[in-house]
Amino acid sequence: MKFTINRQAFIKALNDVARAISSKTTIPILTNMKLDLQEDQLVLTGSNADISIQMTLTAEDTANELVIESTGGITLPATFFINIVKHLPAKDMTLSIEGLQALITSGSASFKINGQPSSAYPKLPELSETKSLKISAAQLIELIAQTKISASTQESRPILTGIHLSLSGNQIKAVTTDSHRLSQRIITLVGSETVDDASVIIPAKAFNELQSLLEGQNVVEVKLSANQAVFIFGNTTFYSRLLEGNYPETDRLIPSEANTELEIDAGVLSGAIDRASLLSHESRNNVVLLTIKDQQAELSGNSQEVGQVKEALAANKITGDDLEISFNPDYVRDALRVLQGKTVELKFTTNLRPFIIIPEGETDNKQLQLVTPVRTF
Amino acid sequence: MKFTINRQAFIKALNDVARAISSKTTIPILTNMKLDLQEDQLVLTGSNADISIQMTLTAEDTANELVIESTGGITLPATFFINIVKHLPAKDMTLSIEGLQALITSGSASFKINGQPSSAYPKLPELSETKSLKISAAQLIELIAQTKISASTQESRPILTGIHLSLSGNQIKAVTTDSHRLSQRIITLVGSETVDDASVIIPAKAFNELQSLLEGQNVVEVKLSANQAVFIFGNTTFYSRLLEGNYPETDRLIPSEANTELEIDAGVLSGAIDRASLLSHESRNNVVLLTIKDQQAELSGNSQEVGQVKEALAANKITGDDLEISFNPDYVRDALRVLQGKTVELKFTTNLRPFIIIPEGETDNKQLQLVTPVRTF
Repeated sequence: MKFTINRQAFIKALNDVARAISSKTTIPILTNMKLDLQEDQLVLTGSNADISIQMTLTAEDTANELVIESTGGITLPATFFINIVKHLPAKDMTLSIEGLQALITSGSASFKINGQPSSAYPKLPELSETKSLKISAAQLIELIAQTKISASTQESRPILTGIHLSLSGNQIKAVTTDSHRLSQRIITLVGSETVDDASVIIPAKAFNELQSLLEGQNVVEVKLSANQAVFIFGNTTFYSRLLEGNYPETDRLIPSEANTELEIDAGVLSGAIDRASLLSHESRNNVVLLTIKDQQAELSGNSQEVGQVKEALAANKITGDDLEISFNPDYVRDALRVLQGKTVELKFTTNLRPFIIIPEGETDNKQLQLVTPVRTF
Repeated sequence: MKFTINRQAFIKALNDVARAISSKTTIPILTNMKLDLQEDQLVLTGSNADISIQMTLTAEDTANELVIESTGGITLPATFFINIVKHLPAKDMTLSIEGLQALITSGSASFKINGQPSSAYPKLPELSETKSLKISAAQLIELIAQTKISASTQESRPILTGIHLSLSGNQIKAVTTDSHRLSQRIITLVGSETVDDASVIIPAKAFNELQSLLEGQNVVEVKLSANQAVFIFGNTTFYSRLLEGNYPETDRLIPSEANTELEIDAGVLSGAIDRASLLSHESRNNVVLLTIKDQQAELSGNSQEVGQVKEALAANKITGDDLEISFNPDYVRDALRVLQGKTVELKFTTNLRPFIIIPEGETDNKQLQLVTPVRTF
């Protein structure tokens, strides 16, 4: 096994594959990265058992400046290896294998580092009976961003740490809830294809890594099997295990009518929420109060130990009943951050029922954030 | 007490004063910042008992847009207060006192936060029998940067955690050593004044904060008393306690002759040191080997568990005896980082004696870094 490669192109691929690699794994070989040098390409693999990333650098792609002298494979300690490649002095580098050592040379510098045989590296999952569909990368990024905020980070109900994807017709619906708030995003598949109904739960953590890899990509092919989801785009294949179990029914949680509606510039509301949460974060209960009275809205907070805050909200439009409702400001801040709209609508039923935040004009709950109020009396 | 102020000018001053304030203090009131509103200026004070920073915002300076309605004082929880000021919506803000509460208003937002009386805040140290001198701020920054790297971070010998300043004639000499390495920087005072001989030891940690405040300043007045050093510049007064005790005699540690000399581009050496230390950091002993033989220099490292590294160094000039010397690469990397010279000279006596690194052409040890080698046999 021996190849020469453009160092910048190699570093880009190494960084991407390293997203799957954790130094905290209980399986020692997974701290390594696998290099598999074939006749016309170099395949890099990283995994933490939950997700795996495989990236292919071809000789055909001239940016790689990949020259392959002889094929073979090895696994190398990922962090150490990547650090070396990053610090080498020349534009390109050569890697060759002598037994279980990799000899790396670049300019006047040379390293020999100890590796392990690639045969010791776990096989990637094989997929059977998959469903296949195509999504635009930009929409998938938006879907992840708008839902992952409500995925639970508590392992007490593992199913809630996932993003629930339901396929139906030519649409894909993503839902998350940690039982205090809920996020929903519906997107339309690329082309006019219709796929069979399906329902899978993908760990939200896996999507964190996927999201970064998708930047600048065009179309993503998604394959779903009984226990794996695979995302294929550019020169990357991204594997994630699925969570097992039944996701709670969420449609019935979303209120279909409103007694009070507030339309406001997202930046204005967001600024006021940020200020009010400075106080709520210092106090024991992280709660703020929204008061709507006589078509006027005010956000306030009160803590005996710390002090008080209040701010009149310059709303675009207020309709319906007067209302006093308390909530965790962090949930609203997160929701405003991920919604695309410059103007948002908040729709309330009563101060005991969840309220929703949607971009102005949204009618089909395609982009929806739901927050459960806090009972303060 | 009531004033209105430009928020950006206020934030800048608050951030600067906050450098002295720690949330980890054992004296609760020191987590507060003191605001003292006088007839024509607002004086802010922060302290962690080791250092204190006082900053004056005058009504005269139009950038402050400071309008004083009534004088008075209070202390407010520093982090919380600064966070509020940063997040306020309008260009200016008004602060007034009602009992022990501060009422802060800006645009449509208002906060009330609980404070403590300014009488509860410790007095700043009073200085008696001071010596006074002037240094250029740029030179003082350089002096701090070039010496703090060798100050000890271990409290076992507290005196070594300081920077030793000796005044003599119109020069000030700064020295630090953690007993593995030593840094020395000599600068000339502003003007042609001569001050009495003096010797003080200032905690290196205090200088960390001072260094940031000095950016963009012109001349610094330094006052030294028996147990305090005070630095006065712009609208800032910076106090630091002194370390008590006798600093070890360091002049005799600096070798006056060399048997082997290496002149090299600092960037070239630095790159090779970075690479070699990737390996040494992974292995049990953080040591690299410099070999000088037949006018050729090579840097290498070897670790049975991890691997090997070697690199030929493109030196400008090599003179004197052949040499094999081992050292901690971090010490040399730090030294190269803080020295100004593009080209450096390394001067060795034997592989058991400390070697020095100086900018090319330096003859009076005005900028000097000394490293003790590691004995590996």
